[in-house]
Amino acid sequence: MGKGERTRDRIIGKAMALASRDGFDGVTIGALAGQLRLSKSGLFAHFGSKEELQCSVLQHAAARFTSDVIEPALHTERGEARVRALFERWRKWLLRSTMPGGCVLVTASHEFDDKPGPQRDLIEDQMRRLLDTLARCAESAVRTGEFRADLDTHQFARDWYALMFGYHQLGRLFKERSNEAHLRNAFEQLVSAVRKTGQH
Amino acid sequence: MGKGERTRDRIIGKAMALASRDGFDGVTIGALAGQLRLSKSGLFAHFGSKEELQCSVLQHAAARFTSDVIEPALHTERGEARVRALFERWRKWLLRSTMPGGCVLVTASHEFDDKPGPQRDLIEDQMRRLLDTLARCAESAVRTGEFRADLDTHQFARDWYALMFGYHQLGRLFKERSNEAHLRNAFEQLVSAVRKTGQH
Repeated sequence: MGKGERTRDRIIGKAMALASRDGFDGVTIGALAGQLRLSKSGLFAHFGSKEELQCSVLQHAAARFTSDVIEPALHTERGEARVRALFERWRKWLLRSTMPGGCVLVTASHEFDDKPGPQRDLIEDQMRRLLDTLARCAESAVRTGEFRADLDTHQFARDWYALMFGYHQLGRLFKERSNEAHLRNAFEQLVSAVRKTGQH
Repeated sequence: MGKGERTRDRIIGKAMALASRDGFDGVTIGALAGQLRLSKSGLFAHFGSKEELQCSVLQHAAARFTSDVIEPALHTERGEARVRALFERWRKWLLRSTMPGGCVLVTASHEFDDKPGPQRDLIEDQMRRLLDTLARCAESAVRTGEFRADLDTHQFARDWYALMFGYHQLGRLFKERSNEAHLRNAFEQLVSAVRKTGQH
């Protein structure tokens, strides 16, 4: 990795931490320059604008989510096992985040949902891919005969997504130690409701 | 209502709209003074600080949520009917919000979850009361014999809350017309899983 790339990585790492705690609105060239002891013009050499910087953070976070959560799950056995593998990895990503303010993709979803622009397009695209992945995992469990043949995988994907987002928020706000156990119970209920009867 | 009160109401109304669309960080005395064509000193006469202004918006929104959603639901017949009444009113509040960026209580939950202070204390307290209300509604359905006697109402309240928060976010991000129908299906599944067997 060249010096330029290392600096770029350092900038994105710090920007992710800032976005996680204070939101993307706090990720400005000026704020970062101060925190990293770099000149503003040095930062501008890497990112031409606040928008480009925020988009780079989003792409970086999405790539990490894909490699840490999605890809390993897609390499496990198809069917319910894959649904469970994805859940386990996603749960750890969301509830045991090393970022100071939790998952920046969740932060971005809330912050940009009312702000048209490339950041909103990026996060909407990422989250739509995620919904598609969730639905495809459920489909694979329908094909193995573990989930009901008439399962609405579109609905299942949204219920699952809502559960994860909702429990992430419960965790951030209440900091209850039982939060992870509650999410696990909720997920078991979601899965048991779509299993073929007799497989409970 | 005196002139002072009317002005105060006008300020809070505008501040709520601002918070809904741009987040609470955008609710500053300066920004509001510009939008309302009031002097900064005039605004300071009503709210001594940005913090006080943000807390007033939170209290106002919470009071409206209580009178529009909670109180009418608590006046319906106890049991499953009350759970359903609360769901219907809450669903409308969340998904058909007249606020430009959706529910400000949701916005505040995300924005203040990593920021200790009176705003965070206020929103945490409001959301904890809401969880308690959800659990009490479920308890009333246990007492009427509609919900299972061994129901964990603490878990049920959190599952329900997560569902509402998650679907609110799905609605804001994807703007799918099917979102409300999906939330309704998810709620039906949540309720049918806790009903006494044979009452499906």
